[in-house]
Amino acid sequence: MMNNTLVNGQPSAHISLFDRGLSYGDGLFETLRIEAAKPLLLQRHIDRLCAGLICLKIPFNQMFIDVLRAEIEQLCKGQKQAFLKLIITRGAGGRGYRAAEDLEPNRILMIAAAADYPQRWYQQGCELYLCRTRLGLNPLLAGIKHLNRLEQVLARSEWQDQYPEGLVCDIEDRLIEGTMSNLFLIRGQQLLTPLLNQCGVAGVVRSVIIDSAQRHAVEVVQRALSIEDLFQADGVFITNTGFGVLPVRGCDGRTIPLSPMIQAASQWLAEARRCES
Amino acid sequence: MMNNTLVNGQPSAHISLFDRGLSYGDGLFETLRIEAAKPLLLQRHIDRLCAGLICLKIPFNQMFIDVLRAEIEQLCKGQKQAFLKLIITRGAGGRGYRAAEDLEPNRILMIAAAADYPQRWYQQGCELYLCRTRLGLNPLLAGIKHLNRLEQVLARSEWQDQYPEGLVCDIEDRLIEGTMSNLFLIRGQQLLTPLLNQCGVAGVVRSVIIDSAQRHAVEVVQRALSIEDLFQADGVFITNTGFGVLPVRGCDGRTIPLSPMIQAASQWLAEARRCES
Repeated sequence: MMNNTLVNGQPSAHISLFDRGLSYGDGLFETLRIEAAKPLLLQRHIDRLCAGLICLKIPFNQMFIDVLRAEIEQLCKGQKQAFLKLIITRGAGGRGYRAAEDLEPNRILMIAAAADYPQRWYQQGCELYLCRTRLGLNPLLAGIKHLNRLEQVLARSEWQDQYPEGLVCDIEDRLIEGTMSNLFLIRGQQLLTPLLNQCGVAGVVRSVIIDSAQRHAVEVVQRALSIEDLFQADGVFITNTGFGVLPVRGCDGRTIPLSPMIQAASQWLAEARRCES
Repeated sequence: MMNNTLVNGQPSAHISLFDRGLSYGDGLFETLRIEAAKPLLLQRHIDRLCAGLICLKIPFNQMFIDVLRAEIEQLCKGQKQAFLKLIITRGAGGRGYRAAEDLEPNRILMIAAAADYPQRWYQQGCELYLCRTRLGLNPLLAGIKHLNRLEQVLARSEWQDQYPEGLVCDIEDRLIEGTMSNLFLIRGQQLLTPLLNQCGVAGVVRSVIIDSAQRHAVEVVQRALSIEDLFQADGVFITNTGFGVLPVRGCDGRTIPLSPMIQAASQWLAEARRCES
């Protein structure tokens, strides 16, 4: 049997009870998509991870990243289509919230089965749920993919399988993201996407869309958006590592038009997945 | 050797990589003080835990609580002075943020050495640090002792051992709590303590002080407090399970008077520890 998990380079399916990831959510994660044994958009995932490590003041150096890359490569071997989940925690121990100075971060890698995304979602667009759960405001941690994800768990608990995703607003009624994806609105020739300076996760596919749009001379505006903006858009799509670019045709029972620009965004992503290392 | 950890009733020092406590901080914790093999203020800890389980929609029943009590009792045996840390997670697995319907919560119990609190802290009062880290606003999760504790980790990382505790404000400049304790100000014959409806943890010793004050006809006002309120107080103390009631004689280089009412609060706690089950 192929080994599907690595903890600090060793096959293991367990971690110490004293790991700070468990105690405090003191760490970060990434979910990578693997195609033909290759992790897609790896450099972007590494970049976001490093931004998170810096934000959380988890010490690391180039060797740490090199070892991580080698472990990712090792675990991807022979995987045709899969997800790789990567968790970095600050390490095990310390006295209460205070971490010891010499903690070694723990590296946890897990392979998961690729998810199935129905073709009709892409062809006809999908209907989204509108979550009642509101995101809190936390400028300190906004944007990074840390392990403190209770809000997402509660938002995702509001519906079953009838919707592929739900949209969440913050406590000041700004539309922020999906529970596990980012949101783009099309207005004329512009792309609008929520500013993530108070809450939200700045996704890797989101960064691909923003960079590609700029290369294709499509203006992207990051600003506060409302539910009204959503229903006034000429088109809407959501993005994440798993489903890529997903067209939205409705939310909360209201219809949203489909726009040809969604197809362009899909192609930008396909190109980045093919060409970026 | 005495066994110091239990996972679902079995001696173990590890947990599955797929536990949602690690993945998302999807759970709760309690830290109990043990004296002469007895967990102090146990019912209050259980009550707060249950409030948290309800808030996070983690299903439980009376049998779950009974089993937990039995495990706590088992682990306390022979412990003269110690801490018992209890973690409840939603369980292992699910698909992303979505938990399976039939998940079984995991019960993790760990004994830790009792901490040493210098007598001079109690006799002379202690000097507190004022944290630069600000707490975000999250009404949904305010008050409960969940596992999403990155803010506390970052706040606690600001100083070393020169202060026993640091005070934290929220992003709107309200004074909320210590990184691991609650805050009380004395003003005349009143006690003031921050309202914890936007952020903060409602501590067990905090609840003892509030209940005891009412029994002793001392008015307790829960409201928004500022740094100015701190320095205008006639006395200040902080509370937690470990150090109990700790007098404060200064913060951020400024002096705070010591008040005889602090001694009264200490006695209320001693009485509750002695008399409550």
